[in-house]
Amino acid sequence: MNLKSISVPVLSYLSEEHFITIEELCHQLSLSRIVIEKQIKQLQKLGYELALDDQKGYRIISRPDILLPFEIQNRLTTCYIGHTIYYFPELSSTNIVARQKLIEKKDKMPEGTIIVAEKQSGGKGRLGKRWYSPQGGIWLSTIFYPEIALSHISLITPMTAVAVARTIHKLFPHIGVEIKWPNDLLIDNRKVCGILTEVSTEAQKMKWIIVGIGINANNDSTKLPEDIRKYSISLTESTGQLIPRATFVCYLCSELENWYEKLKKKEFLPILKEWKLYNNIIGKKVIVDTGGKIITGEALNLNERGALILKTDKGETREIISGTILKEKSIWEDYQ
Amino acid sequence: MNLKSISVPVLSYLSEEHFITIEELCHQLSLSRIVIEKQIKQLQKLGYELALDDQKGYRIISRPDILLPFEIQNRLTTCYIGHTIYYFPELSSTNIVARQKLIEKKDKMPEGTIIVAEKQSGGKGRLGKRWYSPQGGIWLSTIFYPEIALSHISLITPMTAVAVARTIHKLFPHIGVEIKWPNDLLIDNRKVCGILTEVSTEAQKMKWIIVGIGINANNDSTKLPEDIRKYSISLTESTGQLIPRATFVCYLCSELENWYEKLKKKEFLPILKEWKLYNNIIGKKVIVDTGGKIITGEALNLNERGALILKTDKGETREIISGTILKEKSIWEDYQ
Repeated sequence: MNLKSISVPVLSYLSEEHFITIEELCHQLSLSRIVIEKQIKQLQKLGYELALDDQKGYRIISRPDILLPFEIQNRLTTCYIGHTIYYFPELSSTNIVARQKLIEKKDKMPEGTIIVAEKQSGGKGRLGKRWYSPQGGIWLSTIFYPEIALSHISLITPMTAVAVARTIHKLFPHIGVEIKWPNDLLIDNRKVCGILTEVSTEAQKMKWIIVGIGINANNDSTKLPEDIRKYSISLTESTGQLIPRATFVCYLCSELENWYEKLKKKEFLPILKEWKLYNNIIGKKVIVDTGGKIITGEALNLNERGALILKTDKGETREIISGTILKEKSIWEDYQ
Repeated sequence: MNLKSISVPVLSYLSEEHFITIEELCHQLSLSRIVIEKQIKQLQKLGYELALDDQKGYRIISRPDILLPFEIQNRLTTCYIGHTIYYFPELSSTNIVARQKLIEKKDKMPEGTIIVAEKQSGGKGRLGKRWYSPQGGIWLSTIFYPEIALSHISLITPMTAVAVARTIHKLFPHIGVEIKWPNDLLIDNRKVCGILTEVSTEAQKMKWIIVGIGINANNDSTKLPEDIRKYSISLTESTGQLIPRATFVCYLCSELENWYEKLKKKEFLPILKEWKLYNNIIGKKVIVDTGGKIITGEALNLNERGALILKTDKGETREIISGTILKEKSIWEDYQ
């Protein structure tokens, strides 16, 4: 597979406000005229509309809805998340490419590195189920190396769910968003986001964590297979507007960093508290499929090990790390 | 890196007892004379001494000390461990190659698959420290997919330590072997074996476990760097005999399968009981470095989550997943 990501350095010198000559671009970037012209062509191909003045040079007329690193990074306020971004027009899955990159770089990528793609051909959800990832969505993975005890690993997914929920809430305060345990977010009871966390340990120590986040942003869920369409929603459908995806990712990086910092400092309570604000099962009667075994009971809490605490109908208290909620209807069984 | 393992199918038709003609070999293996002759040459190059009779064909005169899959598998009594073996004269580390093979095969290698090498150029111990792996040792990794809760992951290393201790005990009953928590085995207070377990999880579910086992068997520890030599011992040094390595691996596969089956059935107590028989710290006063933090106390037990239970000098009870014992002398600090 081609692991080559795209970056177009010339973009950071172009703006809507000012013209810049090709000579100045050559000078600033220490690149030849041929290379600069090639990058300009690449930008136009990616959807950037440019004005060219014989005297004054280039200016941006309009930008496409694109997740090129510069579009995210030019307004990033984080300390590390998103400071390194690998961008791909298409790939198998950002989690797979993150894993391959980690091998390539001998597990030494900067913390908070992001792999982002416009499309995934092999996006995956929990239990290996397919996750449709067409153009218009936000498909990304982040790499973490937290020095936390293995017993807290399972807090990574709730922490990420909180970060995504807060990002949606911040950008679209009028939209109600819910966290569906263990790894999805819903709007109007339909999936808007899925999270897939992969962890690697060596000799009882954390090696790396890859957090995959898939968000239905501007993708058209009416184009999904029929059986999935009714359980799926995109941000553009629910808000009635085009989502500025690069801005969304930028906000998401800030939220991720904020909550991840708490996790690293073992400030688990604020994460759990926020998670409970958004979740849709605590205090409710649920039916959980834990991989063959069906447990019914009341969802009491999410604990510091990221486990759902269930009071079963038999009166026992159970810790559940992962499972599928079959609450009310079993509509979630087939689509993770 | 070259991921090509070596196998020599013709070997399984050759024996010390009977001659076999090249025509018969061609027929049995459905291979051409040229291919058969090539394999015969390869065997001779690997150290097999063969007799050739013009009429009767080939017969084995002597076999080298080699870990070729056939030499292990021809006396294997397991149900699955060791049924698939990838053999390499040399590689970076069997854990690394196991990981690469898992990616190549999309995580679908048979359970109990073994990667074995005569030499490792990049063998690793705990905390990323170098593990010297010259010719003559046993350097292998096994792949497992246990359906156990994440909280029991840390039992994999103690389980493996028990399997190795029992193998040594079975083959050399007169040799005393100790398990040094968390991942080594000692003879005469010197390292004879190290274990490095890597775990991969996805969405709170186990994806795979790679257990790397390095055993100083016939390698000459006097050739190790001086600072390591005094803390290292090989089976050949302690027994005064050449170790039949293929036989050793064969016994090890049986022990691994026996204890791994218990783990899968959640029969943790027999594993812990056996571990305690061989371990050298329970009941003793220890000083543990848990990555910067030094804890002193009495080692009380190993629990079902694979954690060492320590009663600290302050009277608290602590669970420790991983650390370095600095007991008595701090001789272990520099060599993991």
